Amino acid sequence: MFDKLHEECGVFGIFSNNNHDISTLTYYALFALQHRGQESCGIAVNDDGVINSYRDSGLVSDVFTDRVLEELGNGQIAIGHVRYGTAAGSARLNAQPLVVNHIKGRIALANNGCLTNAAELRRELELNGSIFHTSSDAEVISYIITRERLKSDSIEDAVTRAMDSLEGAYSLVIMSPQKLIAARDPYGFHPLCIGKLDDSYVVASETCAFDSIGATFVRDVEPGEVVVIDKRGITSITEHCKEKDSAMCIFELIYFARPDSVVDGSSVHVARQRAGEFLAREYSVDADVVIGVPDSGLDAAIGYSRQSGIPYGIGFIKNKYIGRTFIQPTQADREKKVRIKLNTVAATVKGKRVVLVDDSIVRGTTIARIVKLLRDAGATEVHMRSSAPKFLYPCYYGTDIDSQKNLIAWNHTTEEMREIMDVDSLGFLSTDNVEKIAECQKRGFCTACFTGKYPCTPPKEKKENKYSKKIGASETEEKK
Amino acid sequence: MFDKLHEECGVFGIFSNNNHDISTLTYYALFALQHRGQESCGIAVNDDGVINSYRDSGLVSDVFTDRVLEELGNGQIAIGHVRYGTAAGSARLNAQPLVVNHIKGRIALANNGCLTNAAELRRELELNGSIFHTSSDAEVISYIITRERLKSDSIEDAVTRAMDSLEGAYSLVIMSPQKLIAARDPYGFHPLCIGKLDDSYVVASETCAFDSIGATFVRDVEPGEVVVIDKRGITSITEHCKEKDSAMCIFELIYFARPDSVVDGSSVHVARQRAGEFLAREYSVDADVVIGVPDSGLDAAIGYSRQSGIPYGIGFIKNKYIGRTFIQPTQADREKKVRIKLNTVAATVKGKRVVLVDDSIVRGTTIARIVKLLRDAGATEVHMRSSAPKFLYPCYYGTDIDSQKNLIAWNHTTEEMREIMDVDSLGFLSTDNVEKIAECQKRGFCTACFTGKYPCTPPKEKKENKYSKKIGASETEEKK
Amino acid sequence: MFDKLHEECGVFGIFSNNNHDISTLTYYALFALQHRGQESCGIAVNDDGVINSYRDSGLVSDVFTDRVLEELGNGQIAIGHVRYGTAAGSARLNAQPLVVNHIKGRIALANNGCLTNAAELRRELELNGSIFHTSSDAEVISYIITRERLKSDSIEDAVTRAMDSLEGAYSLVIMSPQKLIAARDPYGFHPLCIGKLDDSYVVASETCAFDSIGATFVRDVEPGEVVVIDKRGITSITEHCKEKDSAMCIFELIYFARPDSVVDGSSVHVARQRAGEFLAREYSVDADVVIGVPDSGLDAAIGYSRQSGIPYGIGFIKNKYIGRTFIQPTQADREKKVRIKLNTVAATVKGKRVVLVDDSIVRGTTIARIVKLLRDAGATEVHMRSSAPKFLYPCYYGTDIDSQKNLIAWNHTTEEMREIMDVDSLGFLSTDNVEKIAECQKRGFCTACFTGKYPCTPPKEKKENKYSKKIGASETEEKK
Amino acid sequence: MFDKLHEECGVFGIFSNNNHDISTLTYYALFALQHRGQESCGIAVNDDGVINSYRDSGLVSDVFTDRVLEELGNGQIAIGHVRYGTAAGSARLNAQPLVVNHIKGRIALANNGCLTNAAELRRELELNGSIFHTSSDAEVISYIITRERLKSDSIEDAVTRAMDSLEGAYSLVIMSPQKLIAARDPYGFHPLCIGKLDDSYVVASETCAFDSIGATFVRDVEPGEVVVIDKRGITSITEHCKEKDSAMCIFELIYFARPDSVVDGSSVHVARQRAGEFLAREYSVDADVVIGVPDSGLDAAIGYSRQSGIPYGIGFIKNKYIGRTFIQPTQADREKKVRIKLNTVAATVKGKRVVLVDDSIVRGTTIARIVKLLRDAGATEVHMRSSAPKFLYPCYYGTDIDSQKNLIAWNHTTEEMREIMDVDSLGFLSTDNVEKIAECQKRGFCTACFTGKYPCTPPKEKKENKYSKKIGASETEEKK
Repeated sequence: MFDKLHEECGVFGIFSNNNHDISTLTYYALFALQHRGQESCGIAVNDDGVINSYRDSGLVSDVFTDRVLEELGNGQIAIGHVRYGTAAGSARLNAQPLVVNHIKGRIALANNGCLTNAAELRRELELNGSIFHTSSDAEVISYIITRERLKSDSIEDAVTRAMDSLEGAYSLVIMSPQKLIAARDPYGFHPLCIGKLDDSYVVASETCAFDSIGATFVRDVEPGEVVVIDKRGITSITEHCKEKDSAMCIFELIYFARPDSVVDGSSVHVARQRAGEFLAREYSVDADVVIGVPDSGLDAAIGYSRQSGIPYGIGFIKNKYIGRTFIQPTQADREKKVRIKLNTVAATVKGKRVVLVDDSIVRGTTIARIVKLLRDAGATEVHMRSSAPKFLYPCYYGTDIDSQKNLIAWNHTTEEMREIMDVDSLGFLSTDNVEKIAECQKRGFCTACFTGKYPCTPPKEKKENKYSKKIGASETEEKK
Repeated sequence: MFDKLHEECGVFGIFSNNNHDISTLTYYALFALQHRGQESCGIAVNDDGVINSYRDSGLVSDVFTDRVLEELGNGQIAIGHVRYGTAAGSARLNAQPLVVNHIKGRIALANNGCLTNAAELRRELELNGSIFHTSSDAEVISYIITRERLKSDSIEDAVTRAMDSLEGAYSLVIMSPQKLIAARDPYGFHPLCIGKLDDSYVVASETCAFDSIGATFVRDVEPGEVVVIDKRGITSITEHCKEKDSAMCIFELIYFARPDSVVDGSSVHVARQRAGEFLAREYSVDADVVIGVPDSGLDAAIGYSRQSGIPYGIGFIKNKYIGRTFIQPTQADREKKVRIKLNTVAATVKGKRVVLVDDSIVRGTTIARIVKLLRDAGATEVHMRSSAPKFLYPCYYGTDIDSQKNLIAWNHTTEEMREIMDVDSLGFLSTDNVEKIAECQKRGFCTACFTGKYPCTPPKEKKENKYSKKIGASETEEKK
Repeated sequence: MFDKLHEECGVFGIFSNNNHDISTLTYYALFALQHRGQESCGIAVNDDGVINSYRDSGLVSDVFTDRVLEELGNGQIAIGHVRYGTAAGSARLNAQPLVVNHIKGRIALANNGCLTNAAELRRELELNGSIFHTSSDAEVISYIITRERLKSDSIEDAVTRAMDSLEGAYSLVIMSPQKLIAARDPYGFHPLCIGKLDDSYVVASETCAFDSIGATFVRDVEPGEVVVIDKRGITSITEHCKEKDSAMCIFELIYFARPDSVVDGSSVHVARQRAGEFLAREYSVDADVVIGVPDSGLDAAIGYSRQSGIPYGIGFIKNKYIGRTFIQPTQADREKKVRIKLNTVAATVKGKRVVLVDDSIVRGTTIARIVKLLRDAGATEVHMRSSAPKFLYPCYYGTDIDSQKNLIAWNHTTEEMREIMDVDSLGFLSTDNVEKIAECQKRGFCTACFTGKYPCTPPKEKKENKYSKKIGASETEEKK
Repeated sequence: MFDKLHEECGVFGIFSNNNHDISTLTYYALFALQHRGQESCGIAVNDDGVINSYRDSGLVSDVFTDRVLEELGNGQIAIGHVRYGTAAGSARLNAQPLVVNHIKGRIALANNGCLTNAAELRRELELNGSIFHTSSDAEVISYIITRERLKSDSIEDAVTRAMDSLEGAYSLVIMSPQKLIAARDPYGFHPLCIGKLDDSYVVASETCAFDSIGATFVRDVEPGEVVVIDKRGITSITEHCKEKDSAMCIFELIYFARPDSVVDGSSVHVARQRAGEFLAREYSVDADVVIGVPDSGLDAAIGYSRQSGIPYGIGFIKNKYIGRTFIQPTQADREKKVRIKLNTVAATVKGKRVVLVDDSIVRGTTIARIVKLLRDAGATEVHMRSSAPKFLYPCYYGTDIDSQKNLIAWNHTTEEMREIMDVDSLGFLSTDNVEKIAECQKRGFCTACFTGKYPCTPPKEKKENKYSKKIGASETEEKK
């Protein structure tokens, strides 16, 4: 809502042995994963090998009406996808699951992540006559799997072999006429987990999707693992995978995932609360109340409060009735925009020294407006605490971090930032402590956006191009 | 959301001397008041005496598109309304502001409340040949004002005289070709306040509407007062009003109003927090964490936590992506319905003794399901605390409290309720303390739903009929 | 479509003794009457005395979806209405059937026509405290009936007495909890007929509504007659009616009614064909082909062809795919607008002397553009024939004839008009012959728009005001 | 409307040198071509080499709102497409223009027709690793062009070479970053013509698209010709094309094309009128009136009337107000369905011997219902005449003729058909005469559906499969 980073996707899959209404289950699972992407969504359903699909731009609860779900029908296997994005036209074109035919049949594919060698793979494929309908990695991956499928005995072999060509971040859910396959990149950048519903298996980006449909968590898909689910049950393919240091995106814990999810063994809520506790130790202050920016700063605020002993309070009320056609205040009045969606609870902050906790500061503009709201409501001091370290480097693995020129922390010292945001003190969680926020420490994390240490080679083409390129547009010249 | 009571309305009005874009300001103000009614909404705009209006069923941000606002146009005076209700067809018919022509011109009227003598007034009017298009009190009030207008020199005189005939609860905002009038019943059942925006005046049900448009609070409309705003400024008419004990609905503080509003001098947030504090004193318990049912139980949970010293925690995550066409789980699976909208944060409650705070318990069915969620997530004990006393009596002043046969507290002892909800202990705020939750104690409160002490005579016809009657339907027999 | 006059309404009613699906039958009947009004529509259904209704702006097939019909439910009596109009907001407010409660129960009312004393009646009612939600005559009539109902033993008595107060044109269909009533003004300005479906009765503006639902025509409602249908069958009340010369609107035959309808004993198609035959006798010409402007000029063109012996041809193709959101060409390019909706069949007119027949010429602007299309397509001569006489006088009985200043015939001689439209010759049916086009000559016709002979006194307020007044708007000053 | 055959598409393209608003022009052109396909539509716009597109299921005037056209933007080249189809989901997926990226840039492609070797080409491409998103020939053609593009110096060379691989019917409009290309198969199965608008070129399936935007006809694209339009003007490539007997689908003249179009030198209206004249000679009868089934039978009815001397009459009124959400009568009552959309003009047929002319008889069921309408309206005799010969063979070139088992003429003798339809006599235009209906006889026609003489080899897989296959579905087994 307020100047936040965006995850690019959430995925879900189900292989039912219990005559579940799998379209509706997928609908509710995607609804639970909606926070991972609000641009577009889609469901593909497999009924005895026949794959039907529907996808469109919009929220799950707007795109999938009773009529659409009815037309989708029911079956034994289904996969679904939610996606973050912008322009309306391209949103629909790039919506997933991608459903394509190849020589051995039809497959549907949903992906969360970002390949670092997508451009190279695309060029190589185009040189062999491939055509591309979308600008998504999912289409590149579909081609690579199809290429391997021609030489493989099974779809799972094709997926496993394809992984040798793919570099970067991906959490894949694939449906063939008879199988459901889940695959996670060797670094395990983004989460992917396995659950059970009666005698059936489900896979999802986050455990909150399991809770929403009454499934129970079984285990995470391991980095580099391919999981195959079919009538005979569940099989794991791991031998092909070269040993790599796992590097789950730390920002999944800090902001992306839902607090009620458990990701790679760690409660998201606890991780955020711990981040708040570390912050309180690193940047203590004498104050009267700790408040969080709703909703993402609340967990860390509680941690800060508990560690510091300063009471936790409700500082803001968010208007939750923003419908599809909400009329945004004009550009000229950005400050009003914040106020219409968020109002201070004056009773909490008036005459108080306030510790304001948020999960991260990207451009800093929204925080400045929120601070002004607090001062207008009578706060005597505002101490800003960010439960993420400073953003200094671009992300190539599926997060839309701005180019450095827009990152406030890249362009300013802490003192300058403090002045820009007009706060009395400002503290960021240290890069040392950010790696300690997870309960489960058996795996490593990717903290490249804070440290610049990239687990795998960034793409050759510049980041700026990647995100400034108008999706749905194309080269302006015809090449010979 | 979950088995809650419903307020019947929110109102807003603006008289602009500053060339404001009053349609848009009314839109944002209604958006801020949306919690008071989600069934239907409407805006009437007065441009140099010509009144245009638009109303429909649905949320403010769905009904008022750019195009509709543009067609409404701009002007100097505007009023708006949000309303709670049910059936789609009747929702539109009963939407307000009501706009009618009478012999002296056109007026628009928006009301929050419920007359206790509406049926008698209606019968009397019908005997004189009146016809009714709607089942709303607003139409009865319009007739009464019109009747008085024929004998009065001004619209404000007519409104003042009309108040002699009206019994029960009403907070009115009326627009004539040249004036904006606000009137509140002599008991002051529901809030109504005055604000200022530049050199212009605004009136609204709650102060949060002022915050959303940048207006500042001036004062409350007093019980029984008529406030007239026109080009000459603001005038108050109070002499007509017989002295009555004011009796603001205590449930405005407990549940209806937004926590960031200040109602008749009391912060809603503080009142709820205090309710939690009283609860902690009345029903202390040895526990590990205090959680609130989102969103209405959070403020009281903080009060309970502060008073008791038991840490406050985030127990639930609410899914905020419920769009217009959200597919409800089938009736058969009510429990699932709760889970899809609300998930427990297992890390907060697992292995813990939990104090669960909510603002009220009406039928008790939803709480039972929420308690089950907590137990499934591993809570070892669940201690339920209600920041409202037990609901025992029907409300005749604008709240849709069920007939007694559906009130769990009317039908069961506390111990029975504890068993039904499957909690380890259960406590309700006492009726003594509920009257002490407001910061500002200069006025009295209506606590009839808890105590049966009605500030003014209930209507003669039975409550059951009032709410079971199909709106939009009619007598089945033709009378001679 | 092209600069045509507009009828103001179509009505339908059914009293079923056969468990018909009356909502759906009313839907199809209104669909057949759609040509009488495309602005708004509505249906009211009576189930055992409980009246439900739905109305909105838009076409029948857009407003009434499966869901809306389902919510309307079924019953024993239903009435429906289609209405012509313009602005979206007011269209919905003024949609009929009007459904109101009075002291003796609820009634629904649908009207086709225009009272000449509506303003006086309204003023009188307002002086007694009446309030008006709409600007429609239907609301005035509802009040008058209600006033009489208080003094009458039955609804039909009230309707009969009310007719003493009503002046001008009206064809009413009224539904009380137990009865269906049809009433036609003493002049019989607009059609109203009775049909039978199994053992049930239906009433409608035109017989084409009967054909669409498989009902058979029984007879016309006589001018001044009140027809009452209830469980005991059908009753006629006529004694109250003072003898008047009937004066059915001749334009019903020329343009308003559907060619497949039979109106007051005359086939509409035959009347138009006869108009063409008279035209051919009055204005013969040496030509190669006779074409009609689709769709309203086709019948008369066939008559002209048959009488003159000049072959009939298809001169134009009309694009029938104009959806709800069709983007109109910009104002600047009106000519293009005609071409996009209507294209010439060059093969029919190229190198030919063409007789072009249309039903009427109001402003003349569209005809001029159509003539240009013919010349561009190679027509060597264009001879224009109008099957209506010249429009010279305003209509006060339910047709939206422009004020005289916009009528081309009022402002220009025939020769000037010929030049303006750029035709080689121009002929209008004579006022003598227009009265002879009906097969059934037992009743008289209203030809006031051609002759200025008004069957009943026109209203005192000027025509200009009547149509220029912004519906949904109001007086600009507050009266003392 | 009534049991008709369906064309599969209409195409349009514009290369503007005059700063035209090409999105809007394409919109109006597609609107004029809407009769060629009502399932889905799309427009692709090229602004300085950047191609944007939008496509969806639905009518042109529903899909392209102001907002969508605005988002599409303007440019120098645009192409558009309308398509016939069924299921909603697949309609959107298969909508054209197809827009794909290949190694040399982006192209957009719109096609009218049906390849006979699509399955073979697809298999060949899949064996090389191609994946398919749609089931349309357009995607196959895009691959073939892309394959050739890798070896060609220009897009037009690629298109020309690709034509060597394509068998069957296609009328292509292709847009590359800098060029607009039109190509027609060597048989010229479907029409494709070139027009001029100011200094700009347009191409379209039919000339009526030119009329709608004010363009003038230049010439037809020749069978086998590739036309290239770019900044330097218009170029024709014909040398590659092997001499073939042209074989334009005769059904374009009989039914598909709009009567105001001129196709390969012949007026469609004249061709239909001539068909009626031949019919009158072949099957004369003593009768009172000739009527056509609207709208497709009207032209031939006029021809029959002129040749026979029997007067032409208007037999039916079609309801033109069928909106998007029209509620179809239930399956059980098919007869009612006809009556709701079509009503007889009783005055025309009552007591008359009627000649009923339609363009074709496929299954015969609808005609039987129409005949019943006539008899119910009092026709004493009904003589059915079809201006197409009997349908006996499937079509493989872009028309959805049913498999033979559904063709009434394949399963019954003329006498049996006469009895089934309950007509007094029945006549079909002879296969000899059908080839003579065109004014311009310099080219041959495909009459395979009547004669079984296929201009080029039908596909190997059975027709039944082709059309019964659920689009959007897939093989049910995974192949090894």
